Amino acid sequence: QIDSARLWGSIHETAQFGATAKGGVRRLTLSAEDKLVRDWFRKACEDAGLEVHTDALGSQFGLRKGRDMSKPPVGIGSHLDTQPTGGKYDGILGTLGALEVIRTLNDAGIETEAPICVVNWTNEEGSRFAPAMMASAAYVGDFTTDDILSRKDADGTTVGQALDGIGYRGDKPVGFQKLGSFVELHIEQGPILEAEGKTIGVVDSGQGVLWYDGKISGFESHAGSTPMPLRRDALATLSEIVLAMEAIARKYGPKAVGTIGEAVIANPSRNVIPGEIAFTMDCRSADGAIMDALDRDLRSAIAEIAARRKVEVKIDLVWRKPPTHFDPKLIAAVENAAKTLGYSSRRITSGAGHDACNLNTIMPAAMVFVPCKDGISHNELEDATQPDCAAGTNVLMHTVLAIAGV
Amino acid sequence: QIDSARLWGSIHETAQFGATAKGGVRRLTLSAEDKLVRDWFRKACEDAGLEVHTDALGSQFGLRKGRDMSKPPVGIGSHLDTQPTGGKYDGILGTLGALEVIRTLNDAGIETEAPICVVNWTNEEGSRFAPAMMASAAYVGDFTTDDILSRKDADGTTVGQALDGIGYRGDKPVGFQKLGSFVELHIEQGPILEAEGKTIGVVDSGQGVLWYDGKISGFESHAGSTPMPLRRDALATLSEIVLAMEAIARKYGPKAVGTIGEAVIANPSRNVIPGEIAFTMDCRSADGAIMDALDRDLRSAIAEIAARRKVEVKIDLVWRKPPTHFDPKLIAAVENAAKTLGYSSRRITSGAGHDACNLNTIMPAAMVFVPCKDGISHNELEDATQPDCAAGTNVLMHTVLAIAGV
Ligand SMILES: NC(=O)NCCC(=O)O
Ligand SMILES: NC(=O)NCCC(=O)O
Repeated sequence: QIDSARLWGSIHETAQFGATAKGGVRRLTLSAEDKLVRDWFRKACEDAGLEVHTDALGSQFGLRKGRDMSKPPVGIGSHLDTQPTGGKYDGILGTLGALEVIRTLNDAGIETEAPICVVNWTNEEGSRFAPAMMASAAYVGDFTTDDILSRKDADGTTVGQALDGIGYRGDKPVGFQKLGSFVELHIEQGPILEAEGKTIGVVDSGQGVLWYDGKISGFESHAGSTPMPLRRDALATLSEIVLAMEAIARKYGPKAVGTIGEAVIANPSRNVIPGEIAFTMDCRSADGAIMDALDRDLRSAIAEIAARRKVEVKIDLVWRKPPTHFDPKLIAAVENAAKTLGYSSRRITSGAGHDACNLNTIMPAAMVFVPCKDGISHNELEDATQPDCAAGTNVLMHTVLAIAGV
Repeated sequence: QIDSARLWGSIHETAQFGATAKGGVRRLTLSAEDKLVRDWFRKACEDAGLEVHTDALGSQFGLRKGRDMSKPPVGIGSHLDTQPTGGKYDGILGTLGALEVIRTLNDAGIETEAPICVVNWTNEEGSRFAPAMMASAAYVGDFTTDDILSRKDADGTTVGQALDGIGYRGDKPVGFQKLGSFVELHIEQGPILEAEGKTIGVVDSGQGVLWYDGKISGFESHAGSTPMPLRRDALATLSEIVLAMEAIARKYGPKAVGTIGEAVIANPSRNVIPGEIAFTMDCRSADGAIMDALDRDLRSAIAEIAARRKVEVKIDLVWRKPPTHFDPKLIAAVENAAKTLGYSSRRITSGAGHDACNLNTIMPAAMVFVPCKDGISHNELEDATQPDCAAGTNVLMHTVLAIAGV
């Protein structure tokens, strides 16, 4: 059994790095706050006897030796970055839970056959730089390191510049740390476990993701003197796109979701009809055929709206992550750990993307979910209970012991 | 006849202060660019022999003596500020046209009975600070000077701070310069004169304006893991409001227009359902009863949308300017000047608001319109021809001579 109070203490101690007035955390990847939590994490890993290295994209790897160093390590961990208005648990539970597993094994003097590697992946959230789960995507070879280093945030700062800015461009190449498998603990970020009174979600699959950048070019003109029929209003166009996206996602519901999270009017003014808007779209489904249908329906709806309103709309698919099907043996190991420990559990699909979904493309991976209050995440009110966090961490530990061998 | 080349030269010389790559002007009120054009204008007025004063809200007044100084001056002028993506003529033609009238009278050695006062009103556009036509509204007593000085832009800078920032908080109290009447030359900012091949618009009325500040409070949550039916999406709510506003304005069309020009998502992120949006609304009609109907329809549509989406929407009417009916005698003077000079003309309603609309509430006022290309305004592509600008300035001069007496 892990030390529930120590885990809880770590979560709340690190929540100070970027704490918001509403009780959440604002710790965008590679920000000053992210540097603080990374420094804390490195020291905590070193204090736990791990050998810590940082790769060229800033991901932190803390290695605990195994009896058989020819075996690839079992990877555990998640991320410490948050959304602009994020919570205290998303990613953090999985990373500090992994640290707690190491501390517990140390205290109990337990050695494992295979080594264990604790990981803090850079930019899981995808809020400052696209795509999400950027560093683990480069790790599995979906993108080159140089490509990722050149990605820009809204202010034009590149990943490379941001890494240098906080001193976290590591000296190890991406992929330097081989892993044999990966297990990630996370809050569910959805309402199912809580609603069904289950403690553990045994994650068997994850939704695929489509991310688009969009741009609407209408025509700026005077709000008072331009007759309604002559307008080419970029905001009215966006409004139709938002509602079309909602209708399309509902059509495939509950097997799909669709969101427009960002929309910025260029040079906005009260008495000017908006002429140009940049926006983003996020569509998901656990079913690849539905993902294709979402893409097709969305493109045709947008084409119709643009033509009717005599406005240009460009959309650019910037990221496509297929649905994830986790490794059956690892899924069984998680399920078995939950059963052995006496926690109620159910199989579940992840609505959110996770680094484990990337790792699963090149190695066996799995995930452990615990409930979060009202399914709320990506919100400062995100909440989870101490017993549930401890339960998930216990399941993580027992799963790791089963994989690594004692 | 005014000097068409000199007028054209002034318009293009001052267009350098805030010139944009697309051939427009970005000269927000009380900005560094606005200071440059104000300095230029003051010097040009002084060179033309005018006595120049600035009032506590930065409006510039250049007085040309009349034979009978007991008579109140005839005011002419407009504004030199622009929209963020504005053109070279909106306001500028009327201000530099007024200067050109003075220069022409000087060259011809013409004295008038009543004095003439050239005016550059502060913040006509209303883009940086609300409301539009702010300084002339204070001049006619719609707002106190202190109220206006405390208005803030989006960055929290007050009008008072902005005035001090460019050294244009004048030593004269607002209203220090009495005027007996006011005539404003302006581009039409709409498509009618051009479409009908008329050179002069004799403006007999102006639309009333309703400006609102709005705020939507939904609930931020995860774009991937929040099922569609559980969402309280602030952007989807805004989208319905935008389309409702459009439908309501069309219902009263062509007698009404409605626009949402500004909308800002708080803490936007690709994978977060928008939780909070601040927006503005602008509705207009030349018919007071339709203005009331717009307000009523809009409020009930918004209440329905908010209730159905379980989202809070607050709207706050920040400005209500009733429709304008210009002075019949001055309207006739403008019409007569056009006829005498041999220009085709028609009566017209102004779709935009103007300082003349404010002045009309306490003195006889009128306006002269000239065509602008494709009716485009509040756009960098705004355009007007040199002959039309000269024609309008000639009509302005002859109207002024008729009112002031030779
Ligand atoms: N787990 C999580 O919130 N990931 C962020 C990436 C995404 O799914 O949008
Ligand atoms: N003439 C003009 O563009 N005025 C700006 C104020 C408004 O009508 O919105």
